[in-house]
Amino acid sequence: MGKYVVGHQNPDTDSICAALTYANLKQELGEDYQAARIGKINAETEYVLEKYGVEAPELIEAVTEDDKVALVDHNELSQAVTGIKAAELTGIIDHHRIGGIETGNPIYFRNEPVGCTCTIVAKIYQEQGVDISDEMAGLLLSAILSDTVIFRSPTCTAEDEKIAKQLAKKLAVDIEEYGKEIFKAGSVVNKLSPEELIQNDYKEYEFAGETIGVGQLEVMDVAVAEPIKDELLTAASNLVEKNNYKFLVLMVTDILEEASLVLFTDAAKEFIEASFEAEVKENEVYLPGVLSRKKQVIPVLSQQFE
Amino acid sequence: MGKYVVGHQNPDTDSICAALTYANLKQELGEDYQAARIGKINAETEYVLEKYGVEAPELIEAVTEDDKVALVDHNELSQAVTGIKAAELTGIIDHHRIGGIETGNPIYFRNEPVGCTCTIVAKIYQEQGVDISDEMAGLLLSAILSDTVIFRSPTCTAEDEKIAKQLAKKLAVDIEEYGKEIFKAGSVVNKLSPEELIQNDYKEYEFAGETIGVGQLEVMDVAVAEPIKDELLTAASNLVEKNNYKFLVLMVTDILEEASLVLFTDAAKEFIEASFEAEVKENEVYLPGVLSRKKQVIPVLSQQFE
Repeated sequence: MGKYVVGHQNPDTDSICAALTYANLKQELGEDYQAARIGKINAETEYVLEKYGVEAPELIEAVTEDDKVALVDHNELSQAVTGIKAAELTGIIDHHRIGGIETGNPIYFRNEPVGCTCTIVAKIYQEQGVDISDEMAGLLLSAILSDTVIFRSPTCTAEDEKIAKQLAKKLAVDIEEYGKEIFKAGSVVNKLSPEELIQNDYKEYEFAGETIGVGQLEVMDVAVAEPIKDELLTAASNLVEKNNYKFLVLMVTDILEEASLVLFTDAAKEFIEASFEAEVKENEVYLPGVLSRKKQVIPVLSQQFE
Repeated sequence: MGKYVVGHQNPDTDSICAALTYANLKQELGEDYQAARIGKINAETEYVLEKYGVEAPELIEAVTEDDKVALVDHNELSQAVTGIKAAELTGIIDHHRIGGIETGNPIYFRNEPVGCTCTIVAKIYQEQGVDISDEMAGLLLSAILSDTVIFRSPTCTAEDEKIAKQLAKKLAVDIEEYGKEIFKAGSVVNKLSPEELIQNDYKEYEFAGETIGVGQLEVMDVAVAEPIKDELLTAASNLVEKNNYKFLVLMVTDILEEASLVLFTDAAKEFIEASFEAEVKENEVYLPGVLSRKKQVIPVLSQQFE
């Protein structure tokens, strides 16, 4: 028989950190729950766990009728661990829509319209008068910064921000700086080849008989592209040659700064210079305020072909 | 457009008091919700409202798409106000099983396996650092004593008891004494005629060709029967005559004390005396530990007919 706190399938940082912290809170309150997970730890979460020296939750395949299970960061059984219908569901901490769950008995179900499950877990620590260790505070803070995109997500509430600031103060962590570290660690930039990065979100356009390619890569900090700029440009040139493009443009869009670093192959330079009021370097230009390929880039480029 | 906090159909004291107090808490927090109800105030609740000088919530027929609604003491839409599916459901405070509710957006849904919704409302006052006025404390305490049968219900938890004791201390209320007052006020004894009280839960039995009638009336305090004992005995004699019974017995069962005051017509006396070791008075006997008609009364009476 096991007692598990477990997040959803394809776990993100909130699901993992909420499982770890809520299990810790239950342990502090005398209940022997342990954190579990039902999927791979992603790169972002791995960074967070290493940063605070906490081991990943145990990977479980399924639960059975002998297990007690508390769900975090989800309340829909379709997103939950295999076997959940047989197991005894003892509680839910979540921040999503209510998804039609039915139980035979009253359970502890706490759903709040906040940006992050860990905000609710932190509140329960406080309500129960349980001290939060530095390790657990680090996990809670990391999850809040991750789920709220450092307070920039429309789902972020004043409560998320308040709790995160309390935790950051306790840990003497700079929120912006640490938040960016988290997103950098989780960026696709670390996982895909230069060619895959260009083609991850990619479109071809035909103007006046010529074809161009425009890729877009969303990042939390444009600095992640710096070390691989040369590789990206080489991959772009190869694609131009292979596909007989006029040129290729890659927008590396910083969604925090609301700006794009645009990398481009040689033949694009005159089109870029004519399209944007900005200091255009050899194969790059930084464009503040430019976020949308469809609305801010394609229309102005197309004019140059007329 | 209205903003309502509303309990379930056929509201009990918890539904009414939770609506009033949670609406008050929301007002204290700057949200202009008002308490509503979707059914008659029962005698118990009426006593409680009068005791603490609080007006009953507004009676509403239905809600519409223009209304925002928070549910208390229920989470199943089948038990809720008419029109709930059209309205905007903004929150739920409850202590029942989870009943399959679905929402499009995240909402505040707080379900805890405690004995009373008002225990949860009191906790939220505390968590939010909002002072509880004497009126609201009175309603919260009354609902907890009602829903937990003064801590005797198997659904009662240590949390219900802790919160109720805090509230009682603040109000300088004796819990046992006030709890009994609540149940006395709500007792059917105040609502039914003597004949109806006898026949409310009533069975006839045939032994050796003779018919007897045995009624049972469950009360929180056997003292409620004292002022109407003579009327009950008169009604009992009339039923004996009308139905040609050997005799009639009425068990007034005190579910708090776990005892029964048994009232009976004259011809029953020798049967009662032979059946129970107790001081049998003219038309009554007090039997500690006797609660079950089926298991503790009928078998011993039937033996006397053999």
